[in-house]
Amino acid sequence: SEDGYFNSHFLRKPEERWKNREDHELYCAGHLMEAAVEYYKATGKDKFLKLMQDYADYIYKVFVIEDLAAFKTPGHEEIELALVKLYDVTENKKYLELSKYFIDTRGTIEEPYILEKYNHYNIQDHLPVRQQKTAEGHSVRASYLYSGMADIAVKYNDTELFEACKTIFSNIVNKRMYITGGTGSSHLGEAFTLDYDLPNSKGYAETCAAIALAFFAQRMLLLEKNSVYADTVERVMYNGMLSGISLDGKAFFYENPLEIQPVLNKRNVSTTFTERNPITQRKEVFSCSCCPPNVIRFIGAINGYIYSYEQDILFINQYISSEMLYENIQADMKTDFPSSGNVSIKTKNINQIAIRKPYWCTDVDIKVNGNDAIYTLEKGYMYLGLTETNNTIDIKMDMPVRLVRSNPKVHEDSKKTAVMRGPIVYCAEGIDNDFPLNQILFNEKCEYKVNKSNDLDADILKLRVKIPKESDELYTFKPFEYIDKELTLIPFYCFANRGETEMRVWL
Amino acid sequence: SEDGYFNSHFLRKPEERWKNREDHELYCAGHLMEAAVEYYKATGKDKFLKLMQDYADYIYKVFVIEDLAAFKTPGHEEIELALVKLYDVTENKKYLELSKYFIDTRGTIEEPYILEKYNHYNIQDHLPVRQQKTAEGHSVRASYLYSGMADIAVKYNDTELFEACKTIFSNIVNKRMYITGGTGSSHLGEAFTLDYDLPNSKGYAETCAAIALAFFAQRMLLLEKNSVYADTVERVMYNGMLSGISLDGKAFFYENPLEIQPVLNKRNVSTTFTERNPITQRKEVFSCSCCPPNVIRFIGAINGYIYSYEQDILFINQYISSEMLYENIQADMKTDFPSSGNVSIKTKNINQIAIRKPYWCTDVDIKVNGNDAIYTLEKGYMYLGLTETNNTIDIKMDMPVRLVRSNPKVHEDSKKTAVMRGPIVYCAEGIDNDFPLNQILFNEKCEYKVNKSNDLDADILKLRVKIPKESDELYTFKPFEYIDKELTLIPFYCFANRGETEMRVWL
Repeated sequence: SEDGYFNSHFLRKPEERWKNREDHELYCAGHLMEAAVEYYKATGKDKFLKLMQDYADYIYKVFVIEDLAAFKTPGHEEIELALVKLYDVTENKKYLELSKYFIDTRGTIEEPYILEKYNHYNIQDHLPVRQQKTAEGHSVRASYLYSGMADIAVKYNDTELFEACKTIFSNIVNKRMYITGGTGSSHLGEAFTLDYDLPNSKGYAETCAAIALAFFAQRMLLLEKNSVYADTVERVMYNGMLSGISLDGKAFFYENPLEIQPVLNKRNVSTTFTERNPITQRKEVFSCSCCPPNVIRFIGAINGYIYSYEQDILFINQYISSEMLYENIQADMKTDFPSSGNVSIKTKNINQIAIRKPYWCTDVDIKVNGNDAIYTLEKGYMYLGLTETNNTIDIKMDMPVRLVRSNPKVHEDSKKTAVMRGPIVYCAEGIDNDFPLNQILFNEKCEYKVNKSNDLDADILKLRVKIPKESDELYTFKPFEYIDKELTLIPFYCFANRGETEMRVWL
Repeated sequence: SEDGYFNSHFLRKPEERWKNREDHELYCAGHLMEAAVEYYKATGKDKFLKLMQDYADYIYKVFVIEDLAAFKTPGHEEIELALVKLYDVTENKKYLELSKYFIDTRGTIEEPYILEKYNHYNIQDHLPVRQQKTAEGHSVRASYLYSGMADIAVKYNDTELFEACKTIFSNIVNKRMYITGGTGSSHLGEAFTLDYDLPNSKGYAETCAAIALAFFAQRMLLLEKNSVYADTVERVMYNGMLSGISLDGKAFFYENPLEIQPVLNKRNVSTTFTERNPITQRKEVFSCSCCPPNVIRFIGAINGYIYSYEQDILFINQYISSEMLYENIQADMKTDFPSSGNVSIKTKNINQIAIRKPYWCTDVDIKVNGNDAIYTLEKGYMYLGLTETNNTIDIKMDMPVRLVRSNPKVHEDSKKTAVMRGPIVYCAEGIDNDFPLNQILFNEKCEYKVNKSNDLDADILKLRVKIPKESDELYTFKPFEYIDKELTLIPFYCFANRGETEMRVWL
């Protein structure tokens, strides 16, 4: 409208504008701003961008100058990080200020709940953000907020805010994150719950939350060159985000549980009451449509995660075939990663390169122009000096199949094993295995084969495992006898592409 | 009322009489009849009994002769077995006929659901009872029905009905029963679900259902001398029934889950929505008051489960100190069972005795008048001829601590171990163990001590086990290091007597 307001729903109901904190007005504004920025960067056309600047100016007036809204801070964070993007292309400091205002106001004053059943934790206003130590509440709201906090920490060189971000990030990746990079252990409030509370079949792990964690991690990487951040982006990218979309690109998961037991939907034989279980197949449309476009735009923007360049050092954060050109420097990366750990990078006018050594990699071999390279390892990055103008860097990272255990405090994964190869978390589907998946014993030194599946366009694994012999007794005092089986595993992101079937990550 | 009807609620609302199949009129009638029979047997006073005979006559008229009710068979079975008891003291065959009518009519005609959300499985009228192969629906309704079926099979020497009972009994104890003797895996419909679907913390295992299974098992024992029936009574008696009452006798559990995680009630930090979890402490009063009096009357009637006498053979079904006098035969049993497996029985005028060899017992030593006895084992009973008028039979059953595994098809118990000693199922409570209970490793040959606990008036166990060392990593490629711990276990029936704390049967 004339004053800059831009939301088709509320333009028809102007009297409801800025009345209800749950109405997602600022959330939608943020997404529109992000879209306008990207559209401008891609096309150079600034009509949409200017509309969004007007909108941001108007929001600044309503919230900062005139204080006219029924609430002070967004019910669903997102605009915080969007305003920083708007600042980046417009250089209008007001947008940065508005973002910082929303961040620093949150939790400092009593504001209305967004829903009667959601408390202050759900919207992260239980404490001023600088005092928050744990990831709380709605996991998408939360990680969008933390991303905005990290942005503001960068822009204002705000070490207090950076420390708060570090503490929260550490809480997530060390206590509240699925192995897939998913977060949000409960569908109730779509929320973070408690440390080590990571249920598999009853988990939530919304696609948007995985993406939001990648946003947060990538911003932390700008604040601190530590491989844990890029490792986390990688974990999300190949697992908990990618599972959100079907292999044909047509259907989506909103939640991404680590275990699907279709039988759970059939157990209540004698009643039409049902328990709440996750859906077992992706859907084309959801009534709440956040996740599908979020996956699409994340994949479209993946190039931004590969390189960074700071203080004359080229950082290799992700392994993806790509060409990079920035001022007079160039890099050209070729790899079939994550199918193998072999990466070749040609560089031009680069004097120092820092290559992430992933957490799943034990041995790495680096050659520069055919000669063994000497590097120093710091916070998970391998730093190499380059003496030539043009260099060829060949990286060979070992990528064996590895067995993973959860921290013993994760009750849901007790006595269970997951399997990874490189960054890929694997899962077992019933459709590939004609034996029960709940009692598998792995050998610590497991024999395996890696096979290409044309069907799934992915590397699948065949492992030698043992399972107990079938028996008739319901309870027995006799130890099980075990028999050998070949277990087929597929990448987690491939699950539920061949019809409804049992699926387990933790075996 | 004048016509024989006897239900204080409906006497005030006569127009609602026999209108709603869910109204429990026949269920309440059954319990009243049982009470009247026991009162008559205990006191010789027949006023209450006569009122109940009038009531039964009236029900016969309404349901069999005039067909005046809005339904044909009870919405909640119970009267079937009660009418057989009424027949036993009155010898009026009409009551037996009425019971048989209810049993044989069930599932042969379309009747209304009891609640919109409960289907025919919930009330066992999905099929004529003689065609039913699996235990279905509301687990108390179900096992009361099966008890009535077994009664009628006995009274009418009805082998078809007996075969149906055998099939259903086998389905329960081999596929749908908790190790405690509890049944009913879901609170939704308080019902049986699917074979091997036995969730621990989300199970239901209503106290009444355990008791109803003991009823069913004891009646089956009259049809077939097979130790599985008395074993099942024993399993219920010392575990899933007894857990229904607190050690001080003042508070009760309606449901008896095999795992209590108090933390589950605290996980939804950011919302007031809650998941459905079982209560963690017994209560004095429930709005539905079936379980507490059922426990009390079961314990009061436990003498009926010890002996049976058929074809000049005295059967020892349960080991409980007691004196038995029947016509000219006598038995006097002394034992501290289940604290030990030592039982001494003095008999008089008994020529043959059959002693149950429990499923948990590997070695048994029997002496008659000080000499090693020779016995033949048939269907779990040890048959001995006695040559003297007065005999002393000394039985020593070994009672080591035994590790138990569930059938591999029970997903909830995958890779888990339970511990039993004799008939007692043990559990671990957080209050006794200052380390996590979710990752315990047992040695197949476990070292243990049995200690008397004055606190709980029970034998508690101390086992040497291993648990993983604590670690900071959420996910690790390194196998765990294990440390030794002493695990304290208490009988399952003792759980939740010392405040809210974690509890696990399957470890």
